[in-house]
Amino acid sequence: MLADWLGPKAAALESRGLTRRLRARSAGERLIDLAGNDYLGLASDPRVVDAAADAVRVWGTGATASRLVTGTTALHEELETSLAAYTGHESALVFSSGYLANLGVVTALGGPGTLVVSDDHVHASLIDGSRLSRSRVEVVPHSDVDAVDKVLAERNEPHALILTESVFSVLSDEAPLEELSAVALVRQAVLVVDEAHGLGVSGGGRGSVAAAGLAGLDHVIVTMTLSKAMASQGGVVLGPFLLREHLINRARSFIYDTGLNPAACAAALAALHVLQAEPDRPAAIHTAAARLASACGVAPSAGAVVSVPMPGPREAVRAAEVCLEDGVRVGCFRPPSVPDGISRLRLTAHAGLSDTDLDRACTVIVNAIGRST
Amino acid sequence: MLADWLGPKAAALESRGLTRRLRARSAGERLIDLAGNDYLGLASDPRVVDAAADAVRVWGTGATASRLVTGTTALHEELETSLAAYTGHESALVFSSGYLANLGVVTALGGPGTLVVSDDHVHASLIDGSRLSRSRVEVVPHSDVDAVDKVLAERNEPHALILTESVFSVLSDEAPLEELSAVALVRQAVLVVDEAHGLGVSGGGRGSVAAAGLAGLDHVIVTMTLSKAMASQGGVVLGPFLLREHLINRARSFIYDTGLNPAACAAALAALHVLQAEPDRPAAIHTAAARLASACGVAPSAGAVVSVPMPGPREAVRAAEVCLEDGVRVGCFRPPSVPDGISRLRLTAHAGLSDTDLDRACTVIVNAIGRST
Ligand SMILES: Cc1ncc(COP(=O)(O)O)c(C=O)c1O
Ligand SMILES: Cc1ncc(COP(=O)(O)O)c(C=O)c1O
Repeated sequence: MLADWLGPKAAALESRGLTRRLRARSAGERLIDLAGNDYLGLASDPRVVDAAADAVRVWGTGATASRLVTGTTALHEELETSLAAYTGHESALVFSSGYLANLGVVTALGGPGTLVVSDDHVHASLIDGSRLSRSRVEVVPHSDVDAVDKVLAERNEPHALILTESVFSVLSDEAPLEELSAVALVRQAVLVVDEAHGLGVSGGGRGSVAAAGLAGLDHVIVTMTLSKAMASQGGVVLGPFLLREHLINRARSFIYDTGLNPAACAAALAALHVLQAEPDRPAAIHTAAARLASACGVAPSAGAVVSVPMPGPREAVRAAEVCLEDGVRVGCFRPPSVPDGISRLRLTAHAGLSDTDLDRACTVIVNAIGRST
Repeated sequence: MLADWLGPKAAALESRGLTRRLRARSAGERLIDLAGNDYLGLASDPRVVDAAADAVRVWGTGATASRLVTGTTALHEELETSLAAYTGHESALVFSSGYLANLGVVTALGGPGTLVVSDDHVHASLIDGSRLSRSRVEVVPHSDVDAVDKVLAERNEPHALILTESVFSVLSDEAPLEELSAVALVRQAVLVVDEAHGLGVSGGGRGSVAAAGLAGLDHVIVTMTLSKAMASQGGVVLGPFLLREHLINRARSFIYDTGLNPAACAAALAALHVLQAEPDRPAAIHTAAARLASACGVAPSAGAVVSVPMPGPREAVRAAEVCLEDGVRVGCFRPPSVPDGISRLRLTAHAGLSDTDLDRACTVIVNAIGRST
């Protein structure tokens, strides 16, 4: 049954050279990593590691149930309070992933009475949330404030959400947050900003929404993942107290999902503490990103990611392979994982990269691009 | 904005006594727990705890990216191979939660050419997966094989999925798996069985699908969560190799989500090892469940959960509160979290409960029910 159904699909993908395969990392490997999203370089930091190991001893290895049953520990609450305070919001609610946080907020606020206006570069989880919410969805051109304003003005729905990212995941460009917030206010809409790539990176670490002075406003909601700069797993929705209460009562991906495991809670909390104690870490990301961008001859980006367009998917894959052979792991994105259809190398700058590693990485990448195009 | 929008909703919920609130557990608390889903009693087992703590030292505190980038470690692969071997499937794919595993499999196989036939008691994540998949969805009465057969026979779609749970989460009854499998074969459909409450519990631990001799068949897919008997977090989809490959290439909740954190992988793997080394553990769950059921005067259930119907939501809440005051934590489910609209106490039996604790729990619960009704 499944063989007949999926066999031809697999063959078709294979013949177009588009089959994706998993490659496992081994524990001892010695590569310069420019592919992962451990932006602050904290996933192996002893303080973060110790906090996670301690948490499994104190709290056990799982949350044991949904947050509403036994899945809320004092650790979850401490993480929520700390994240809200750091980013300037009234409250925070932690989900087991950023994906489920985005599904939760969009479905809990969406529905027939809500128009969702979605930037056409937003993450899959926001797109899925929009679809699942049964709202009318208007997809607008990337960072086009006038288009947002227009569909909001013409709507019949009493409520509306504007969905965007602060720093976009693939191109690493920034959304026009202040303009979007102004439009939201005039048009009586709520601005939902995914700061997956902003937390720990932009605004000195607090994210772009805080930097723009928009954190804590009654028409602004922020979502984040704990899996990138926070070196862990999990997601969070930040906003007014009433929003948190609404999500606890209405977000299916919160109510019917097991709470985030204690090790992940503790790791994220410890990473946040390191960031607060060492507020210069985000600047190191930008320094590294600028060097990578200049070596590759592309414009510097707003976030940690340096995006290097390649002529096509095969050249991108080939260049990434050459880098790997030379000890540097880079990301390689090709359709359908790129919003603009352009295959590219995706280099992520980390605060933890040494100067020597950065020099070596630049040499390897420039050589690999040359040999692949 | 949000205040005007959500304030009245919050007030309405409050006035009906239906507001849900989070209550944090503290680390030192000494309660007999019959609310969590740590069925095998492994969340604080030293072997499981040590494995998780070791994993954060070796692998770091996060997977650092999606499974297709840097988020697959050798640990993820070992967990997948071990789970597939234990449950009798060709392959397994680990997601960051059971919720996302269910979304992934239904959306990757669903679509306009697929009819989804969904038991009306299935979990929110399967329902959301169905909605998100843009398939035509037929909801059929609970465990009604004839109804399944009828809608399958009358369909126009080339493909079809039957969605069920092996042991249902709230009522703890078992699905007619053999009959459903037979119907699926005749009607050229794929049977998708959520074994969230089966793994580690039914079929001697291997789950109901394995016990029914259905594991490894080409028309059978199983999903599981690692957050209950496996004492951890994460989800898994089990089935033919081609299914795994299809999900890696098509399941958005896999492709665009950060991999499960190493501590959770290691904990689940260690829990599985304990279960394999101590194959009598699942029997202890059933012994405890039978005692709880008999004390409460309800029929014994197929799974770990004993469901005690209550006259209404207020009585259920009250009884759960009395239990808590007396040192026993029980689950309390009321609409909309109950498939049949009946408020109830939900008692989960654990392999780790001592005889003394069980005796005490029975006394406390019977007294609480008496005082609340
Ligand atoms: C912009 C954006 N939002 C949400 C997510 C999902 O977060 P998580 O991986 O924690 O599910 C990601 C990446 O994974 C992302 O890049
Ligand atoms: C039947 C069923 N399926 C799926 C899930 C979701 O699993 P997870 O909590 O790992 O997201 C649950 C419970 O949480 C469940 O009870």
